[in-house]
Amino acid sequence: MRIHHVGVAVANLDESIELYRNLFDARLAHRARNDEEGLEAAFLRVGDAEVELMSPLREDSPVGKFVAKRGPGLHHVAYAVSDIEKSLADARAAGLELIDAEPRMGMHGARIAFVHPKSVGGVLTEFVEAK
Amino acid sequence: MRIHHVGVAVANLDESIELYRNLFDARLAHRARNDEEGLEAAFLRVGDAEVELMSPLREDSPVGKFVAKRGPGLHHVAYAVSDIEKSLADARAAGLELIDAEPRMGMHGARIAFVHPKSVGGVLTEFVEAK
Repeated sequence: MRIHHVGVAVANLDESIELYRNLFDARLAHRARNDEEGLEAAFLRVGDAEVELMSPLREDSPVGKFVAKRGPGLHHVAYAVSDIEKSLADARAAGLELIDAEPRMGMHGARIAFVHPKSVGGVLTEFVEAK
Repeated sequence: MRIHHVGVAVANLDESIELYRNLFDARLAHRARNDEEGLEAAFLRVGDAEVELMSPLREDSPVGKFVAKRGPGLHHVAYAVSDIEKSLADARAAGLELIDAEPRMGMHGARIAFVHPKSVGGVLTEFVEAK
């Protein structure tokens, strides 16, 4: 496993992209809008991992609620796994609560699944099956 | 640059180490106590990055206050840099507020410095000069 990306909720996507480009030498790899989830995201390459900047499109979206409650900031950590079904089965066997019982398609075209933060010490945790 | 580690505030260090070992195939690289900062930390290797689990030793320590206010969870992100003085100078030139105007020694024996979260969209951000 490795850290695939760190997810950050931001108030202004364009300003945040510039900040990460200037401060961390990050390269914009991908930008996408997800109307169903109510967010726009930018994936910035830093070394062999990424920072996912997420800006809410609506206040009642999951990221919108997060920002309304806690302000912009660290949102989740994603780990690259080779077999997401096995990772989910292992997590379930260890008694962890899964947000996604089955993998679903992420914004990057990879299969993803989230584990509930209450099972990971308050950290919203994502598995990403690398293509 | 690359992501050097993700810092996570935890309530119970031993339980958290076991969770990360089992769930993310993480390997305990280093464990240390810092009485000045009032925390005990465990560095878990995940790929070529680390997860730093931090448990407060006192409620009035920085991590203790964080946990009291927000609960356990994501605390900071650290980026590996080759020249920490240059990274700090660049951050200062970009108008960012630094917590550490000069590098100091971190728990890992590397020189570190923090940038204030209010300058990085709510994300407490650390530079680590890799040895």
